[in-house]
Amino acid sequence: MLVVMDKSATPEQIEQVVKVIEGRGCTARPIPGGDRVSIGVLNNEGPVDAALFIGLPGVKDAVPITKPYKLVSRETRTADTIIQVGEATIGKGYLTIIAGPCAIEGRDQAMTIARHVQKAGAQLFRGGAFKPRTSPYSFQGLGEAGLKILAGVRENTGLPVVTEVMDFQTFDMVEHYADVVQIGTRNMQNFSLLKRAGQSYRPILLKRGMAATIEEWLMAAEYIMAQGNHQVILCERGVRTFVHHSRNTLDLSAVPVVKKESHLPIMVDPSHAAGRRDQVLPLSRAAVAANAHGLMVEVHHQPDQALSDGAQSLYPEQFELLCRQVRAIFKVCGEDEPF
Amino acid sequence: MLVVMDKSATPEQIEQVVKVIEGRGCTARPIPGGDRVSIGVLNNEGPVDAALFIGLPGVKDAVPITKPYKLVSRETRTADTIIQVGEATIGKGYLTIIAGPCAIEGRDQAMTIARHVQKAGAQLFRGGAFKPRTSPYSFQGLGEAGLKILAGVRENTGLPVVTEVMDFQTFDMVEHYADVVQIGTRNMQNFSLLKRAGQSYRPILLKRGMAATIEEWLMAAEYIMAQGNHQVILCERGVRTFVHHSRNTLDLSAVPVVKKESHLPIMVDPSHAAGRRDQVLPLSRAAVAANAHGLMVEVHHQPDQALSDGAQSLYPEQFELLCRQVRAIFKVCGEDEPF
Amino acid sequence: MLVVMDKSATPEQIEQVVKVIEGRGCTARPIPGGDRVSIGVLNNEGPVDAALFIGLPGVKDAVPITKPYKLVSRETRTADTIIQVGEATIGKGYLTIIAGPCAIEGRDQAMTIARHVQKAGAQLFRGGAFKPRTSPYSFQGLGEAGLKILAGVRENTGLPVVTEVMDFQTFDMVEHYADVVQIGTRNMQNFSLLKRAGQSYRPILLKRGMAATIEEWLMAAEYIMAQGNHQVILCERGVRTFVHHSRNTLDLSAVPVVKKESHLPIMVDPSHAAGRRDQVLPLSRAAVAANAHGLMVEVHHQPDQALSDGAQSLYPEQFELLCRQVRAIFKVCGEDEPF
Amino acid sequence: MLVVMDKSATPEQIEQVVKVIEGRGCTARPIPGGDRVSIGVLNNEGPVDAALFIGLPGVKDAVPITKPYKLVSRETRTADTIIQVGEATIGKGYLTIIAGPCAIEGRDQAMTIARHVQKAGAQLFRGGAFKPRTSPYSFQGLGEAGLKILAGVRENTGLPVVTEVMDFQTFDMVEHYADVVQIGTRNMQNFSLLKRAGQSYRPILLKRGMAATIEEWLMAAEYIMAQGNHQVILCERGVRTFVHHSRNTLDLSAVPVVKKESHLPIMVDPSHAAGRRDQVLPLSRAAVAANAHGLMVEVHHQPDQALSDGAQSLYPEQFELLCRQVRAIFKVCGEDEPF
Repeated sequence: MLVVMDKSATPEQIEQVVKVIEGRGCTARPIPGGDRVSIGVLNNEGPVDAALFIGLPGVKDAVPITKPYKLVSRETRTADTIIQVGEATIGKGYLTIIAGPCAIEGRDQAMTIARHVQKAGAQLFRGGAFKPRTSPYSFQGLGEAGLKILAGVRENTGLPVVTEVMDFQTFDMVEHYADVVQIGTRNMQNFSLLKRAGQSYRPILLKRGMAATIEEWLMAAEYIMAQGNHQVILCERGVRTFVHHSRNTLDLSAVPVVKKESHLPIMVDPSHAAGRRDQVLPLSRAAVAANAHGLMVEVHHQPDQALSDGAQSLYPEQFELLCRQVRAIFKVCGEDEPF
Repeated sequence: MLVVMDKSATPEQIEQVVKVIEGRGCTARPIPGGDRVSIGVLNNEGPVDAALFIGLPGVKDAVPITKPYKLVSRETRTADTIIQVGEATIGKGYLTIIAGPCAIEGRDQAMTIARHVQKAGAQLFRGGAFKPRTSPYSFQGLGEAGLKILAGVRENTGLPVVTEVMDFQTFDMVEHYADVVQIGTRNMQNFSLLKRAGQSYRPILLKRGMAATIEEWLMAAEYIMAQGNHQVILCERGVRTFVHHSRNTLDLSAVPVVKKESHLPIMVDPSHAAGRRDQVLPLSRAAVAANAHGLMVEVHHQPDQALSDGAQSLYPEQFELLCRQVRAIFKVCGEDEPF
Repeated sequence: MLVVMDKSATPEQIEQVVKVIEGRGCTARPIPGGDRVSIGVLNNEGPVDAALFIGLPGVKDAVPITKPYKLVSRETRTADTIIQVGEATIGKGYLTIIAGPCAIEGRDQAMTIARHVQKAGAQLFRGGAFKPRTSPYSFQGLGEAGLKILAGVRENTGLPVVTEVMDFQTFDMVEHYADVVQIGTRNMQNFSLLKRAGQSYRPILLKRGMAATIEEWLMAAEYIMAQGNHQVILCERGVRTFVHHSRNTLDLSAVPVVKKESHLPIMVDPSHAAGRRDQVLPLSRAAVAANAHGLMVEVHHQPDQALSDGAQSLYPEQFELLCRQVRAIFKVCGEDEPF
Repeated sequence: MLVVMDKSATPEQIEQVVKVIEGRGCTARPIPGGDRVSIGVLNNEGPVDAALFIGLPGVKDAVPITKPYKLVSRETRTADTIIQVGEATIGKGYLTIIAGPCAIEGRDQAMTIARHVQKAGAQLFRGGAFKPRTSPYSFQGLGEAGLKILAGVRENTGLPVVTEVMDFQTFDMVEHYADVVQIGTRNMQNFSLLKRAGQSYRPILLKRGMAATIEEWLMAAEYIMAQGNHQVILCERGVRTFVHHSRNTLDLSAVPVVKKESHLPIMVDPSHAAGRRDQVLPLSRAAVAANAHGLMVEVHHQPDQALSDGAQSLYPEQFELLCRQVRAIFKVCGEDEPF
């Protein structure tokens, strides 16, 4: 934190800022500049609230300097985190594809789609048993019956399964059936859920909140890691902007930024970013070209009969093309050394 | 929903859209236009996903027409919902002020601030016992000890108390001590929590999510009401935009829009919108001038020593001025008849 | 500017940053911190590009510290700028209302509306002769004929007139007829136009760009002032966000922020922010309650026949109510001393 | 446009809406629905303002149905527009790369960079002679001297040159020297400039405005085409969002959407989207993977001494790698048939 004083700030006002800093247990270091004084805040444990100084007389601005995360930071751990789930590997050097329907609707639906995506080359199967829906009147998922179907898919195909957990009450159950537990965009700052995830023995796939900064997202991962679970996979899925030709705006610059700040793997979900089928293929290729560690894609063999998000689900043959193209792009790109 | 076809759409393509609509149990009504056909979707139960049609051949666009909410809608209930909490009344015709510190830090702090805000004219006291913090290393609240302090404040002052609930596990406890249970911005779409709130015997103060549309916000209220609890107070607290001179951008047009769409009371929290003290007074006056039913304001007698959000807390004498001014503005404005 | 180095930055990397700073003619001041070095950039003329340092090896971040504006800044001139236009005064201590139709459509329309708004208490009349329209096929304004009608209104009513200029070619003409020359939101960073405005003998009303930060807006005013014209009135008119229940999101925190940063007067245009009539009255009251120096409001006696933006135009009787209410609010608020 | 009535709307209110529609010269078609009436607006010339109906009694909403553009629309012209500039071809089936410095700083700088980018495979050279800068105190470009240097580069290398025009006054001059005339993001709705561009004999590269919807952007192209110049190249360059880890947020879903709506070529500028060098390579690859028709990239041989935007300029060897990688990706992707 750097506290910038007004040009006209008096010595007394500077002294007051120093006192507030020291009252927080930090060290204050005044820095005389060309025409004004700034005061550095050093040795702070955890984040200092920029706004704490802004109301004080003589203060012009307070500017955060260092990032508040620890365990997620590449400064704490330089080696990339690689996560093994069954035979799938997620992280630097791998291109991992998770695919499946938005929601598990029944055994036949799940198995049909699983066979398609496995054949096309997906390494994990996804499907929702508990669905966060904007409307209480929309289909909310099959619950435990859906989880059992997922376990059946794993048994039959050997594919590890990824599914979303929505609350503390059902966490044990989801954790029991799933190979990777997903925390959805609406729960990215559900801190009680994050703490529980931090005590899980499963890897956690943490989606970015719809309006979360990278810092907030990494701090959500920090909540999980601070409880002892270091198996966190980040997943960009688009952010909310003024743009309305796609459901959300996919923020691909998040990929290089996260890779620079953190050692955690980062995947991309183009389906929820797009919200409509005809954007999913170009955005998938773009995500891999931006060096994401993988994709999570919605596929359905009968999308016009899907109980949820059918409009953004690919047909199996579209998904095959996607797999072929992104694998070729992955070979072209390699893994950048950051410039 | 209106499905708009391409100018060049064939009769077969139109027929396919009709089939998809009827397959969802709805009625399809084709409407020939000047140079293209559109197809209305009628008799739908709950929302129809616009995107469902967008991938189909010959479809140009799909446009949602009616709003998906029921219980929250003014079309369902024309009379304004008025909520009574102790001696405080919230809703049309009243200006209700909730004030107190961001977090309960101790008995003395709470009582000192409560006396100040009561004297200035607040009708309810607020204070957090469970605090949602971006960083796991920040102060997380006193928990049940904080709730007991809140109960003590009520006993001593007669002021009903408002406090935030963060999860299902502590809901019973919070509900036991609080007079109004708050659901915070990060949990606006924590649907499990909303369902539990719908079974509560307490009024729920539901803050708008940081990037929520009015429709999503009202649907969150619908989750609560659908479980039987019709005592919902909405609270606008700023949305996330590209603007960074305030923590969030207060969206005051939400006040007239919510009043038009819904019968529920709507309050405004200028403190979290601003994030800095020197914007709280002007934004408070603005909110009342826009005809909000009340304010929720953070006040602290020693903001530079607050454990959380001190920078946006008003000094007691600033809060007194605020109360005086907003009451005078309330008299000027009356309650608009919507034009 | 403060350049923050990685914890692991080498002395050579620090030295390189110092060289880049000095190569720009600035002074570099390294500041050893708890666990990393930061380097202050002092004595810079004009803004230094933060990103200049971000690509360099060993650099973690580069944080702008001071604001780049000079003439618009309250640090340069502490006294508030007050602008006199005929009998109207704009600035601290005054509440000034500009009203009229979106576009001048004819002599009768203009005179009818002018008489209404004058009677209700508007001090200036507005109306567009050159209209920036999204579509080339929409009504583009009457041009010079419209300006002549404006001049006629001034002659008949004594009201000074405000109208928009769209380009260099017509600037002389607009300047000749208008008392205040408006630069619209789409031209806020039309730098050639700003320079021409800086050579004008008329006060300039500068609307905020649809996605402009306060800093960019004040820098646009700086362009005008740098050419010698210090008569600039700022006008907030809503910014573009994900919100779609109003045309734009009115950013009222801009009012206290601009007042703190600059000595220039700041008005608010609620009509373009709202885009629909039923939000204009509450937003107008809110703007005055936030201590704006005035309002610019669209009024039309037959809005459903207006050639442009009829839907956001108030009926004359609505405007009368607006004037009564905002004047009463102005009395309540006074002019804040910034806390 | 579809006007949706309240459930409780009276026949008189419906009649009034019909009258307003017919008063605009359009046809009104009432459509009885399940529980409410909607009224279609047919045969409108140009856009109808949704908000026109929203203020009327009994009206719940007004929903735009069809897009207002004509000449830019794929419904008007199904064949893709292909633009030839010297030996470079821009449009479907081609991958075109424009590269060069942000600003022309001198003859040696321009020629050095031009040789680098030509060798790496750029087909056009870019460089600014007139620079739109946020601050009036920043370097504003060399003006005509810069244009002459550009002409010299073309003579020496054979590369066609692209440069920005900022105003009407200098349009003739820019048009004289340039092969492609660029209109920048801040001028996307400078309608006077667009009209002049529509009379130009040069192809126009039209950048998307910082907060422009696709519809507004295509309407800006419509302004140009309506004057007779059909040689328009669109260029996505990132939009303004709450995200601050990149200068803007690159909106790659714009590529498939524009291709669906329009026959015009669409390129991507990753340099201005990123604002920092280390994001340019991944975003460039992503843009080509999303099937953009080309890239516009900033390159500088001494970026830390650049007079403008050095921090986002690639080093020549980075640009070489970029060219190699995007060409390989282009081969992988082919040109999608829209699903």
